Amino acid sequence: MAIITLLTDFGAKDEYVGVLKGVILGTNPMANIVDISHGIDPQDIVAAAHTLMAAYPYFPRATVHAAVVDPGVGTHRSIIAVKADGHWFVAPDNGLLAPILKDFDTTDIFRVTNEKLFRHPVSRTFHGRDIIAPVAAHLSAGLRIADVGPAMALDEIHPLEEMVAKWSSPGVLEGRIVSLDHFGNLMTNIHAGDLGPLGEEQPLISAGKINISGLSATYADGVPEEPIALWSSRGTIEIAVKEGNAARILGLNKGARVRVTVKRR
Amino acid sequence: MAIITLLTDFGAKDEYVGVLKGVILGTNPMANIVDISHGIDPQDIVAAAHTLMAAYPYFPRATVHAAVVDPGVGTHRSIIAVKADGHWFVAPDNGLLAPILKDFDTTDIFRVTNEKLFRHPVSRTFHGRDIIAPVAAHLSAGLRIADVGPAMALDEIHPLEEMVAKWSSPGVLEGRIVSLDHFGNLMTNIHAGDLGPLGEEQPLISAGKINISGLSATYADGVPEEPIALWSSRGTIEIAVKEGNAARILGLNKGARVRVTVKRR
Amino acid sequence: MAIITLLTDFGAKDEYVGVLKGVILGTNPMANIVDISHGIDPQDIVAAAHTLMAAYPYFPRATVHAAVVDPGVGTHRSIIAVKADGHWFVAPDNGLLAPILKDFDTTDIFRVTNEKLFRHPVSRTFHGRDIIAPVAAHLSAGLRIADVGPAMALDEIHPLEEMVAKWSSPGVLEGRIVSLDHFGNLMTNIHAGDLGPLGEEQPLISAGKINISGLSATYADGVPEEPIALWSSRGTIEIAVKEGNAARILGLNKGARVRVTVKRR
Repeated sequence: MAIITLLTDFGAKDEYVGVLKGVILGTNPMANIVDISHGIDPQDIVAAAHTLMAAYPYFPRATVHAAVVDPGVGTHRSIIAVKADGHWFVAPDNGLLAPILKDFDTTDIFRVTNEKLFRHPVSRTFHGRDIIAPVAAHLSAGLRIADVGPAMALDEIHPLEEMVAKWSSPGVLEGRIVSLDHFGNLMTNIHAGDLGPLGEEQPLISAGKINISGLSATYADGVPEEPIALWSSRGTIEIAVKEGNAARILGLNKGARVRVTVKRR
Repeated sequence: MAIITLLTDFGAKDEYVGVLKGVILGTNPMANIVDISHGIDPQDIVAAAHTLMAAYPYFPRATVHAAVVDPGVGTHRSIIAVKADGHWFVAPDNGLLAPILKDFDTTDIFRVTNEKLFRHPVSRTFHGRDIIAPVAAHLSAGLRIADVGPAMALDEIHPLEEMVAKWSSPGVLEGRIVSLDHFGNLMTNIHAGDLGPLGEEQPLISAGKINISGLSATYADGVPEEPIALWSSRGTIEIAVKEGNAARILGLNKGARVRVTVKRR
Repeated sequence: MAIITLLTDFGAKDEYVGVLKGVILGTNPMANIVDISHGIDPQDIVAAAHTLMAAYPYFPRATVHAAVVDPGVGTHRSIIAVKADGHWFVAPDNGLLAPILKDFDTTDIFRVTNEKLFRHPVSRTFHGRDIIAPVAAHLSAGLRIADVGPAMALDEIHPLEEMVAKWSSPGVLEGRIVSLDHFGNLMTNIHAGDLGPLGEEQPLISAGKINISGLSATYADGVPEEPIALWSSRGTIEIAVKEGNAARILGLNKGARVRVTVKRR
């Protein structure tokens, strides 16, 4: 049974997610549809890209991931289909798939143009329904990815600037808060791999007026109301407050700068 | 694999939706259950009816749609099962299914009274669990619809007044905002079919203090903070603000009157 | 097709629930995964326990219920697997499964320690993903429960104090509001079985400044804005307001004391 995941900013109020599922099941009745999230902040491509990167590796290979965060719907932005790391991805070309393309060397990048695969008439406001969902369903049913449209080169793909932390000065890795999770934990874009091996060293984590010395091992560490930093389940640095809502208590929000200072190397 | 959709105002906090699914799977383990939405505003039958009408056509024929927005649960209102447009519907007789019955000429309308199909004991507060879910599951497993109870005439069905826009004066079609979607877009009950062919004409759309000249093609049109009107994915007129929350910016809410003025014809 | 239910406090924003599902499908591709709720208030073990007890009996026997409300993740609290009432349960040993163990005499209680079943590396912040989901998937695929780890005695299990109402004086049964449902109805922990047969008697229900005489049969009973008490779909006493949000109108919240006074017996 082929798995199709859905990731959107559609929320839980309206029929939009249900409509995607109806369209998918109309094309591939055997699809096993799994929600990653529909609670991405409206039009937040950066948060969607991080969420997709955090989720897809936990699915079996050959899963089709359909992502619809699409502020440019109906304009000239393309829709692309990609095969990378053994998974398929279908999404608008607005940066959402840039990280997966950056991490994996793939030549399987295609512009979705084959109108035979679309739902008709194609609206100008809901390409998730009319293009992305049916194309994902066809892929899950065995369509060859090259049949969706012409191949694209990696440098034709819309980049995503805000994805990665950067060394702003020697020993200072600078990233951002890319999302607040449901618990109010502050998720950064600072990956373990960016920081490199720490050994015994305790880095200093700074954000706003907050300075945190060293990384904790669990949420249960530390003092109530005091911030801790730890490795999130995403493999990134996360700022939390024991049994509290860090975003609210610390007054930090999406986009805020986060600095990790290590011994100069 | 038979598809059953669920549409309720149960929200995401409680066990209510999970209980419906458990009951369905107890009766038909092969049911493929798909959520349309559980975020209908509590007891908002009008929004539920619009949502159901907007969603069901995207599902394959022979899907069973179970809808539970039921302020009259435990009173003398009936539960009905309907076959129309190749789909089955099970819901309280409170207006929720009036639009599907208005749009499609069907004699397949039945009062659900066959207690053999129910979960027992039947509570007075949760007919979704005890009647609607098991009846939907039986229908998805092959039960003939006439076996749910006696046939009803169309004029016995509870109507839904607020569903349709009306010509209030020559050239002025008057409708309402029936729901705010997750993005804050204002969804009206003014359908393309009500308005008729516009040709080159640019209608004037008015709501509260807002006047919008002409219809835009995409959300990306127009100026930030300024309202636009466009055809929604439902085929109805929708008022939106580019990259913004129209409901919040324009101060308009559910129930507000919307007028579309066209050349007198 | 084996059913696995999920109950968490993960909310709908993040990838956490999708990740659980991906892990489950990686282990048992035939699992039919059903959400009970992901909207439990963060770390509210009491509400989670009540929700699980209210939901599981509606699922077919042999369903596996995985519950992840886990403030102690990464500390020395155990994870347990239990068979009771014909169902399987996997959850942290923090009280979440205490009610099912109290209600059903079972010797099938096991500490989950068999690392062969886990996802590796096991993080210290997301045991739902690394332990509970894969163990639930293995159980749904036919693993014998005794293979998860060593047997435990009932008295080794973490208790849950706040689950049950108590007779505080003759004729006065005292419980609490354990959760507010999506409609603002106040759900108590006072079960019909605790109160015993009432016959014709009308009990007095008191909470805060509210006194309610007798139990109503349906939500449609009573006067708008006035509180009523009725038997909830959980089989517990619930305080509601006709077509209104009881929590908001009455100013009552989780934890508030509720007294039911009956004739001294």
